[in-house]
Amino acid sequence: MTQTSLGRIAIVGSGAVGSYYGGMLAHSGRDVHFLMRADLGTVMTNGLTIHTGGRTIRVPAKAHATTAEIGPCDLVIIALKATANAALDDIIPPLLNAGTVLVTLQNGLGNEEYLAQRWGAERVMGALCFVCLNRTAPGEVTHIDHGTISIGEFRRPPSRRTELLTEAFRSVGIEAKAVDDLVAERWRKLVWNVPFNGLSIAARATVADVLADDALCAEARGLMSDVLDGARALGHPLPDEFADFQLERSASMGAYRPSSMIDWEAGRAVEVEAIWGEPLRQGRAAGTAMPRLALLHALLRRLTR
Amino acid sequence: MTQTSLGRIAIVGSGAVGSYYGGMLAHSGRDVHFLMRADLGTVMTNGLTIHTGGRTIRVPAKAHATTAEIGPCDLVIIALKATANAALDDIIPPLLNAGTVLVTLQNGLGNEEYLAQRWGAERVMGALCFVCLNRTAPGEVTHIDHGTISIGEFRRPPSRRTELLTEAFRSVGIEAKAVDDLVAERWRKLVWNVPFNGLSIAARATVADVLADDALCAEARGLMSDVLDGARALGHPLPDEFADFQLERSASMGAYRPSSMIDWEAGRAVEVEAIWGEPLRQGRAAGTAMPRLALLHALLRRLTR
Repeated sequence: MTQTSLGRIAIVGSGAVGSYYGGMLAHSGRDVHFLMRADLGTVMTNGLTIHTGGRTIRVPAKAHATTAEIGPCDLVIIALKATANAALDDIIPPLLNAGTVLVTLQNGLGNEEYLAQRWGAERVMGALCFVCLNRTAPGEVTHIDHGTISIGEFRRPPSRRTELLTEAFRSVGIEAKAVDDLVAERWRKLVWNVPFNGLSIAARATVADVLADDALCAEARGLMSDVLDGARALGHPLPDEFADFQLERSASMGAYRPSSMIDWEAGRAVEVEAIWGEPLRQGRAAGTAMPRLALLHALLRRLTR
Repeated sequence: MTQTSLGRIAIVGSGAVGSYYGGMLAHSGRDVHFLMRADLGTVMTNGLTIHTGGRTIRVPAKAHATTAEIGPCDLVIIALKATANAALDDIIPPLLNAGTVLVTLQNGLGNEEYLAQRWGAERVMGALCFVCLNRTAPGEVTHIDHGTISIGEFRRPPSRRTELLTEAFRSVGIEAKAVDDLVAERWRKLVWNVPFNGLSIAARATVADVLADDALCAEARGLMSDVLDGARALGHPLPDEFADFQLERSASMGAYRPSSMIDWEAGRAVEVEAIWGEPLRQGRAAGTAMPRLALLHALLRRLTR
């Protein structure tokens, strides 16, 4: 990334999130290269298909089987599952030049730290996608609801490059903002992910199922309180009203199936430690009990073995 | 029941618990009549088979399809699932004479109240079976571990008839005791049933699975603490050591599958309200939060729909 351009971009992990955000950048004419596995052939032939806001966007996309084939980039957007982080040790090095910036779009806590430890804290940015997306076919993603992306620097305030990336997303119609405190933003996202992704597995409940069941809905709110307690103890206080707002905004999602539910039902890995385990450990280390989160985490660990 | 004899006995609900305790009384020569549905033909032909303590006991048993066929009894032992209590309204009346005693061996809270409201508090006794039993075939029950039965009067201290029933069980080698406070005893049993029956469904975990998983085992202990809090708030304090003891005594059960797990996997009703819902409501009405029990109850309600 320069002061005026994102430069050459790689998308690592081309599930729903990587395909959507990377695809929208490619659609705006930027030089985006996708690392693909399962969908490689489909995307090389047909490009990416994005259903969003009532229209269908077809994006001719440069898909590659290896990052060696992609070569050095200025910006690497990481949307791999957090459970697959070990694979980054081989994936990332071919993409690096001296100034390559790494942005993780992954869920939960611990991902910026993983990148910083290996490739240097100064390269690392993070972003939170508050969005309902489903991968509906190979090379095809459906944007269901919401879509704000919050972008921040790892343990630093926003800088020129933060603004540049934010503006790039805005230019393709995605609501984007630069945030001062990326960790606080991660906790804000956990307020939704902890209950809804968790109950989607533990209770086999879609968002609508949770909201329609008084007892489950009260527990979703209780889990949000546990997350607020953890965030507060770690110096990132969020108002109680934020949890109420998160519950209210969920109504428009309908019978949305959180990605954890889809992964679990398909027998794929679920990000149990990033979303539930690490927040629990950090919150407890800071002196909070988080009793509902602890029970949910123990259940999810067992159910996703 | 007279001052010296149990008299004519009916067993209502001949699953594992009814077959075992009723079968042992029949084995000792008492006049026991079993109300049976699915196992009626098998038991009329072959009697009951009880595997216990390394031996197999075959008991010629009087099995009946209706309580009208059984007629009035002096003692009625109720081992039906609490979820089927509504059926008692038709089942019980033909068994009653002026002095008939009703003893519920059912799980959870609310069963004595159900009987007392309909047929008079003075008839009602309750008993708690701390036992691992499985129905292993039609008319056949396997006694796996433990077996103490605690017997008490509904809102009264033990009396002559309490002792008589206690002695009857002792005479067939079953550890039995009369208890002063039946409600306290119910809470003692909940200390085990709430976590282990609950996690058997919510985590698909046998007793051994829970004990082998550090996080699940800690949550089992946490759920026990919630139950202790409820019992304390309702005036039935139990020491913390009782919970530790309950965890320790579970090790000998091995991969025991609690009855709730077996019922759930077979698509049968689970006693969600008696075991989890009613203790939660009573504990909350007395001012305790019981956050883990509340989450578990909400999950079980949904999973057993």
